[in-house]
Amino acid sequence: MSELHDYNQLSLDRHRQTQGKIETSSRMRLESQEDLSIAYTPGVARPCEVIAEDPGEAWNLTWKGRTVAVVSDGSAILGLGDLGPLASLPVMEGKSALFREFAGVDSVPIVLDVHEPEEIVRTIRAIAPTFGAINLEDISAPRCFEVEDALQDIGIPVLHDDQHGTAIVLLAALRNAARAVDKPFSRLRVVLNGAGAAGRAIARLLTCADGGDHCSAVEGLRICDSKGIIWEGRPGNTPVKEELARLSNPEGMTGSLQDALDGADAFIGVSRGNLLHAEDIQRMAPDAIVLAMANPTPEIDPDEARAGGALVVGTGRSDYPNQVNNVLVFPGLFRGALEARATRFTPSMQFAAIDAVAACVEHPTPMRILPSPFDRSVAVRVARAVARAARDAGVCHG
Amino acid sequence: MSELHDYNQLSLDRHRQTQGKIETSSRMRLESQEDLSIAYTPGVARPCEVIAEDPGEAWNLTWKGRTVAVVSDGSAILGLGDLGPLASLPVMEGKSALFREFAGVDSVPIVLDVHEPEEIVRTIRAIAPTFGAINLEDISAPRCFEVEDALQDIGIPVLHDDQHGTAIVLLAALRNAARAVDKPFSRLRVVLNGAGAAGRAIARLLTCADGGDHCSAVEGLRICDSKGIIWEGRPGNTPVKEELARLSNPEGMTGSLQDALDGADAFIGVSRGNLLHAEDIQRMAPDAIVLAMANPTPEIDPDEARAGGALVVGTGRSDYPNQVNNVLVFPGLFRGALEARATRFTPSMQFAAIDAVAACVEHPTPMRILPSPFDRSVAVRVARAVARAARDAGVCHG
Repeated sequence: MSELHDYNQLSLDRHRQTQGKIETSSRMRLESQEDLSIAYTPGVARPCEVIAEDPGEAWNLTWKGRTVAVVSDGSAILGLGDLGPLASLPVMEGKSALFREFAGVDSVPIVLDVHEPEEIVRTIRAIAPTFGAINLEDISAPRCFEVEDALQDIGIPVLHDDQHGTAIVLLAALRNAARAVDKPFSRLRVVLNGAGAAGRAIARLLTCADGGDHCSAVEGLRICDSKGIIWEGRPGNTPVKEELARLSNPEGMTGSLQDALDGADAFIGVSRGNLLHAEDIQRMAPDAIVLAMANPTPEIDPDEARAGGALVVGTGRSDYPNQVNNVLVFPGLFRGALEARATRFTPSMQFAAIDAVAACVEHPTPMRILPSPFDRSVAVRVARAVARAARDAGVCHG
Repeated sequence: MSELHDYNQLSLDRHRQTQGKIETSSRMRLESQEDLSIAYTPGVARPCEVIAEDPGEAWNLTWKGRTVAVVSDGSAILGLGDLGPLASLPVMEGKSALFREFAGVDSVPIVLDVHEPEEIVRTIRAIAPTFGAINLEDISAPRCFEVEDALQDIGIPVLHDDQHGTAIVLLAALRNAARAVDKPFSRLRVVLNGAGAAGRAIARLLTCADGGDHCSAVEGLRICDSKGIIWEGRPGNTPVKEELARLSNPEGMTGSLQDALDGADAFIGVSRGNLLHAEDIQRMAPDAIVLAMANPTPEIDPDEARAGGALVVGTGRSDYPNQVNNVLVFPGLFRGALEARATRFTPSMQFAAIDAVAACVEHPTPMRILPSPFDRSVAVRVARAVARAARDAGVCHG
């Protein structure tokens, strides 16, 4: 925890010093009358006319085709909850900075002072012509599902990264972890703890709920929330939890998270810190996989997980082996979508990203299932795979 | 006109080569785990919390306090009309590039796929927390008036540059032209041709309709549209034209633009090209001032205006003396508002900008009433004056 306290003050000082993280600049010189006549009036009239005649030319003649908006209403900022749009701006700027630095994608933060899903949708529809893709961020569940669903027809890709970016990197991690422990992915029995934004996306990928090329479902899936195992018809189930119940637990098992772990090959946590102990891991199958993503404190201390018999342990943290960080995914995922001029994200594009991230580690071992977050080749490989999948799916502008 | 045709193809080629004009970059390094922990998680949580406690800290800790959005619905693009949002993007990117290059202000284009004034207003309100100020651009009249008025209470300055930027630079030009011909500004009899967005703003400044420190009204004002002189109660008058009639023409004169020119000291055109000829200028008072802003073809050819007796002739064009270009105004105007953390633009801030631009030419002459658009000191001087006026007006965040 000392790590956290140190970075708090360092981060505050650095933000104050730089007055935020994103800046803009001109790609054209503006030093002479001729420069001005080319970049602005009268010359700029011609690109306008050309786009009016053929809207596809906007991808060639403006920033649209290389720019992602990172959009939030600030309702679920990191683990801090609903602090509102203004307070979410540092996170969105950070995301935009990562897009630029990790994938060479231009990006701007947009924070929204509206809170009803239909208002968020209406606003994003209104600003959509400006951008090539929209990264939704830190919008609370279940509103995030409604917002994302309603935006799938706007002609540019829209993706809620807290759901799908996290799910994709976890699937890549799980796939390589299975190889590291020498168990077939399709035979894994998985316990997923956390029924929020990321949990739903992970469950859908683990069960091939949306189809998609290269999808392979795991053998068994149990999903837990703070009340234990989720089962169909459990009193108090929200629509999302009923959906998760239908995707999992066909035997209708009831009980606690600990009960769910009996004989499981893998645990995926997208929930809260300090929920599990060594004795809980002992209930799992031999050579267990533990991916404990709660931030900053994982669901179980990595050393304790290993003491309980886990062979592969991954967390969101950089100070332990196997950091599972969605910076491995979103920069390349969006860059690929932009390069292909995709109109939307398809399941096959998501599975292409999973494959590409996993393939970055040729021989996974228990201590190394994923590439380093600072390996700049990852985004390039992910982008290439995603762009190819988009073209194969036929979801690209002409 | 050859100028125009040359720049068309040059501009198209250059836009294609650079894929638009604005790009983003990160102000923080992101090369190590420590960099990531400061710019993003876990450290970024602290700036978020600080802003949640004190929203004013957003100006210190994010890009908000240095960033202007250039917003359009594409309904009145240059002289091209309503080409829609996508086709307006090159103009908005150009404006953003000018903000960056001329005033060091960060800026992003935002084009809106909504068309009703209340929808434009709703969208801008929604995205407003992201930015320090909003430059409305190329929105058709009379919708632009309604949109701008409805956004005056959102806590950041909102200004439609086609109205006020143009009006401010024309007032600075007229003030110095009066000095160059040795006539007191307050004794000028002015004919204004054009009752659109810019025309209304010019009329209000010429008559001190909104008050404001340093406002000095001209002695006489006649306003014309395509049907001639506007008078109160003229059949078919829109609400805006009734307003213009009340601001001008107290004697209720009727007749043509040519009739209006009888004895006038100054003509200001924000209308269409090739309306006037030398004999029309001969009807004006001696040492007449002609500011013919229609683009790309002025209301009268500058040489013909001089042949008709005009002593000072200004146009929007760079290939004649006295280019009246609103790039002299908006970069510094917005920079000053940002520096002062203004909540809105006031008339006194506009008059401060007029004074500052005019003061950039110490001794105006008929051939030089304004500074060069490439004089980078203009934005600095305008910004300083505008920021001071904002503080004096008490319209700044704490």
